[in-house]
Amino acid sequence: MERQRHQGMAKNTSMRWRLPLVCLLWELAMIVLFGVFVRFSPEADAHWEEEKRELNLTSDMENDFYFRYPSFQDVHVMIFVGFGFLMTFLKRYGFGAVGFNFLLAAFGIQWALLMQGWFHSFKNGKILIGVENLINADFCVGSVCIAFGAILGKTSPIQLLVLTLFQVTLFSVNEYILLNLLHVKDAGGSMTIHTFGAYFGLTVTRILYRPNLEQSKDKQASVYHSDLFAMIGTLYLWMYWPSFNSAISDHGDAQHRAAINTYCSLAACVLSTMAFSSMLQKKGKLDMVHIQNATLAGGVAVGTSAEMMLTPYGSLIVGFVSGIVSTVGYVYLTPFLESRLHIQDTCGIHNLHAMPGLIGGIVGAITAAAATEDVYGKEGFIKAFDFTGVYRTRTPSVQGGFQAAGIMVSLLMAFVGGALVGAVLKLPVWGDAAAENCFEDDVYWEVPEDEESEAYHMHSADKPASP
Amino acid sequence: MERQRHQGMAKNTSMRWRLPLVCLLWELAMIVLFGVFVRFSPEADAHWEEEKRELNLTSDMENDFYFRYPSFQDVHVMIFVGFGFLMTFLKRYGFGAVGFNFLLAAFGIQWALLMQGWFHSFKNGKILIGVENLINADFCVGSVCIAFGAILGKTSPIQLLVLTLFQVTLFSVNEYILLNLLHVKDAGGSMTIHTFGAYFGLTVTRILYRPNLEQSKDKQASVYHSDLFAMIGTLYLWMYWPSFNSAISDHGDAQHRAAINTYCSLAACVLSTMAFSSMLQKKGKLDMVHIQNATLAGGVAVGTSAEMMLTPYGSLIVGFVSGIVSTVGYVYLTPFLESRLHIQDTCGIHNLHAMPGLIGGIVGAITAAAATEDVYGKEGFIKAFDFTGVYRTRTPSVQGGFQAAGIMVSLLMAFVGGALVGAVLKLPVWGDAAAENCFEDDVYWEVPEDEESEAYHMHSADKPASP
Amino acid sequence: MERQRHQGMAKNTSMRWRLPLVCLLWELAMIVLFGVFVRFSPEADAHWEEEKRELNLTSDMENDFYFRYPSFQDVHVMIFVGFGFLMTFLKRYGFGAVGFNFLLAAFGIQWALLMQGWFHSFKNGKILIGVENLINADFCVGSVCIAFGAILGKTSPIQLLVLTLFQVTLFSVNEYILLNLLHVKDAGGSMTIHTFGAYFGLTVTRILYRPNLEQSKDKQASVYHSDLFAMIGTLYLWMYWPSFNSAISDHGDAQHRAAINTYCSLAACVLSTMAFSSMLQKKGKLDMVHIQNATLAGGVAVGTSAEMMLTPYGSLIVGFVSGIVSTVGYVYLTPFLESRLHIQDTCGIHNLHAMPGLIGGIVGAITAAAATEDVYGKEGFIKAFDFTGVYRTRTPSVQGGFQAAGIMVSLLMAFVGGALVGAVLKLPVWGDAAAENCFEDDVYWEVPEDEESEAYHMHSADKPASP
Repeated sequence: MERQRHQGMAKNTSMRWRLPLVCLLWELAMIVLFGVFVRFSPEADAHWEEEKRELNLTSDMENDFYFRYPSFQDVHVMIFVGFGFLMTFLKRYGFGAVGFNFLLAAFGIQWALLMQGWFHSFKNGKILIGVENLINADFCVGSVCIAFGAILGKTSPIQLLVLTLFQVTLFSVNEYILLNLLHVKDAGGSMTIHTFGAYFGLTVTRILYRPNLEQSKDKQASVYHSDLFAMIGTLYLWMYWPSFNSAISDHGDAQHRAAINTYCSLAACVLSTMAFSSMLQKKGKLDMVHIQNATLAGGVAVGTSAEMMLTPYGSLIVGFVSGIVSTVGYVYLTPFLESRLHIQDTCGIHNLHAMPGLIGGIVGAITAAAATEDVYGKEGFIKAFDFTGVYRTRTPSVQGGFQAAGIMVSLLMAFVGGALVGAVLKLPVWGDAAAENCFEDDVYWEVPEDEESEAYHMHSADKPASP
Repeated sequence: MERQRHQGMAKNTSMRWRLPLVCLLWELAMIVLFGVFVRFSPEADAHWEEEKRELNLTSDMENDFYFRYPSFQDVHVMIFVGFGFLMTFLKRYGFGAVGFNFLLAAFGIQWALLMQGWFHSFKNGKILIGVENLINADFCVGSVCIAFGAILGKTSPIQLLVLTLFQVTLFSVNEYILLNLLHVKDAGGSMTIHTFGAYFGLTVTRILYRPNLEQSKDKQASVYHSDLFAMIGTLYLWMYWPSFNSAISDHGDAQHRAAINTYCSLAACVLSTMAFSSMLQKKGKLDMVHIQNATLAGGVAVGTSAEMMLTPYGSLIVGFVSGIVSTVGYVYLTPFLESRLHIQDTCGIHNLHAMPGLIGGIVGAITAAAATEDVYGKEGFIKAFDFTGVYRTRTPSVQGGFQAAGIMVSLLMAFVGGALVGAVLKLPVWGDAAAENCFEDDVYWEVPEDEESEAYHMHSADKPASP
Repeated sequence: MERQRHQGMAKNTSMRWRLPLVCLLWELAMIVLFGVFVRFSPEADAHWEEEKRELNLTSDMENDFYFRYPSFQDVHVMIFVGFGFLMTFLKRYGFGAVGFNFLLAAFGIQWALLMQGWFHSFKNGKILIGVENLINADFCVGSVCIAFGAILGKTSPIQLLVLTLFQVTLFSVNEYILLNLLHVKDAGGSMTIHTFGAYFGLTVTRILYRPNLEQSKDKQASVYHSDLFAMIGTLYLWMYWPSFNSAISDHGDAQHRAAINTYCSLAACVLSTMAFSSMLQKKGKLDMVHIQNATLAGGVAVGTSAEMMLTPYGSLIVGFVSGIVSTVGYVYLTPFLESRLHIQDTCGIHNLHAMPGLIGGIVGAITAAAATEDVYGKEGFIKAFDFTGVYRTRTPSVQGGFQAAGIMVSLLMAFVGGALVGAVLKLPVWGDAAAENCFEDDVYWEVPEDEESEAYHMHSADKPASP
């Protein structure tokens, strides 16, 4: 223990001045920028009564708050408890998993409100925010949580804040290109959140490659109760994913449909994950890593198409396939990526977000290309793809092409952005831990002395002493 | 440890081919059946705009999604986190509790969408699903989760899937008889979910009686942190039960009333549970088993009557009584059932679901029989009991009689169905563990080597070695 | 262990007859009082169809249930899981934290429905309850949960029930004075819930001062997994606080705005908490105590003003400041209060609720005083502050003055009430534990023998034996 601490010192990991400085200055910047730019949307402003009269609304129920707030709270739980606890599976990195996720997400949502606000909610020099902005900010931060999964245990909190700053910025640019310039549909973010977030994170972790990481190999495992804590994260992500994919869809049938499709996809995904988890293991035992992660691939993989007429059986097929792809990825691809491509992916986000995200983008492109007025109805067709204004004449197949282009743009942004941000994070000023101290809360957290672990250390200490 | 594994082998518990085969084939069957039968309900279909015009609806808010989706998500949490974590109380069966519950529920909801769909949402050869179907599927699976509680730790995952297949089928038939043929009210499922599910599970565990189960007695206990994990399940069930009992009630006052009645009943139940838990223990200490379970009996016991004019004080009385019955059951009845009737009920579902379910059915019958136009109002009376069409002339006392008949039918279905399914599960092909390996995750799961448990096992190993 | 138990006996802590008696008699009293007084509000009553016609409502959606139920469920989670798990941080008091919180809250909501009902929902001799009453009852109990935090681990369950009975009563009186007599706005309860609850609890713990509490010092700490359990509580409080502060605001913009302001304040609070937690620690390591608690101060501190036009940047400032105040409080003030003022504050509620509550009251007073028709709009201004009827002529600055008076009244009620209730709880009849048995579940709970702790105790036992 003392030895570890000593070596940790050799690489100065003290956050005493660096972390407070970054947190305080950046938060002050947020306050100034919010002061200059951010105001309430008309539906959250005290002038709502006048607004209601103007829009000829008869009931407060027509306020967007009531259409979206329940979904917002579910998404909020996914970001903070879902991602936070999913990453507590490591035996001694639970504080870092939940705590750093909390930190980066709390900063990220503020910066996202600004960045996305400038692109999407900017009117007369002000960003007008309502509940939909809160959801979008959570979504944006979701992509940072994904990237965090790849570098979990290997970075300092300052690096995570720097990562968040840059990634939120790039996310917003990419999202603007996709939604506004390419006029792509991606309500559940298969492309904007998962594909972008995952490949961004994988590129960053590639740049930050640590050749001696096997020195902390013993800590890169779970214990019995840490696996149960992780299941809290898994289940909340799984249960609330229908809210995630439907949260910003159009009112009415689109929200309704997106929830049903996601529900179906996730259900099928559990069965194919369990099947392959057992099949790929010599003794046929189930592996908690797969149950914790691959069961969620079905939610990722219908992120683009859930609000379309994917239909329940289409969703089952997508969920079924993505569960298989994800589980196989954990067994074969992750070791390969680490040994051959030097991509050290702590949580296996390549299997949970990258590949299923690509599947989601592709399924979305196909579903869009296959859309017909017959299936959607004349009005429904126009509404579903927003074929109005300059897009009045766009055909389904053209839309499918633009959807595919969206995947490419997201990948490009992820690789280029990830490389740049990775290079910045490689600078030797951020206080990251030495390889032998990775995956260890003791570096950045006051850790209570456990009775159990005392008992354990007494043993360890006894052992070499005895002979 | 090695010895255990060896004996486990003697009874072949390997799931390597059996589990994948069942999961994959059944999921493929689901895909085919969904492809043939399942489509979106008009409120989730892209033709919604036309539907709205036809029904003369002015707002998207009138979509059933907004009436029921928040309750749906609460129910979803109850099924996956509530039941899943409630069963993690065993010291070494947390993976099985959460993981197998996850597996069977994910399969069950798909099969329930079909079974219930054929009975209730079948139009022109298609099952049209919306948010209410999702809730009902979750409800149906809830009854399987209950039955799972009786056999927890003693069955293989394949047995659980087989159980789910049969129980969902029987549940749907029973539900059809009650709701459609007997025209019984049971929105929170005291009869259809709890009475049926519990007596079904108890019959199954009776058939699967294991005479040598005391061999794993030491594992059939909790540890400190497993009891806290279980409290997560308890609290989510307790908090969201108002959503459970109101989720599929009529829009407006019925949903509102069901939530209030359930809230009151559950509050009273906590106090009587605490009182009897302390009173029935020599030293007056509280027992976590009671707090984890009996506090929920109040939710079960107003499952039928919550949407009726039970009134808040009526709810308090029902909750108060059911907390006592349930706690007394844990102390006196469970040991009796095990020793005399050979019913090994791991979670004590007889106390939490069976008896409170019966109470719920009876209270429902009485409340229905006591209904008057004075209390409900002329319109409210007809609406509450759906006394329209062929039921136009049914009187409250007749309705009470039919409610009571509903209890009997549910019991009959549970006993006969449970006996048949138990016989199927007794076949020696399902890979269940030997008695000494029950309640042990190691049989079906890759279990991480814990530092603590290492320390523990080193001790155990040391002990016989030292003399 | 044996020694502890023995000494515990010396101070008779057996609950066997006392706790059951209190629970059963009080619950019977609730049943009688509910029977006499409590009925459904028109929106939950079966006469709703007639009510709808009278009020000229065209849709069931106009039922208050749909405006408030999702927020109610979030608040419910905060009270039972949020507060319950937040207090599980102690290594051996998890059962007491979650279990006693469960007990007192379940009793408290019933008594609160009555007390608040008599003050606010009393019509023709009956209390008419709907979803808003449920929220208010939860709110009221929230203030008891806060006070519980100060005395956590040092009182018997009976003392907690007595505390609840009195505190709910005083809360309701205080709330009536503030809301009805002073016509103060306090939707999120900075004054009524937090300031009152915290100073009440601090006064009680002062009266119950235990000079020898250092005897159980080793138990007044966390272990690794207990800190993770506590983070479940923290995150649910943090995520759902926007629902808390908006739950009983006016329909429409007020609810919408309150949620946004709270979201912003909480985000900023996380950053300033992290900054000061690191800065105030010699090695710059983060302290879980701060992350678990001070990150929530931002929600407390906008409790009064969230529904006003505080604006997002105003919220950021309030959150930022309160995170600092709270963290600094944990580092410097808590030890000072304990050593100098003999205020033993187990959870540090002075830092999380008392000071941020005061900030919240003051910010509310200022925001109200600064309100203009320009910012709110003519109608919005009147609606936001309810400047109708006898309050038609009240000006913002007068309102600000009344708001400030509300803080004073809350403080006064807390100190006087806390002193009286503390004196009652000091009577030697309630079965509280001896100082050396504080923070130990074993006193009131059946605690399972843990393998780990066995291993530990075997060690402890071995050690003195070996030389």
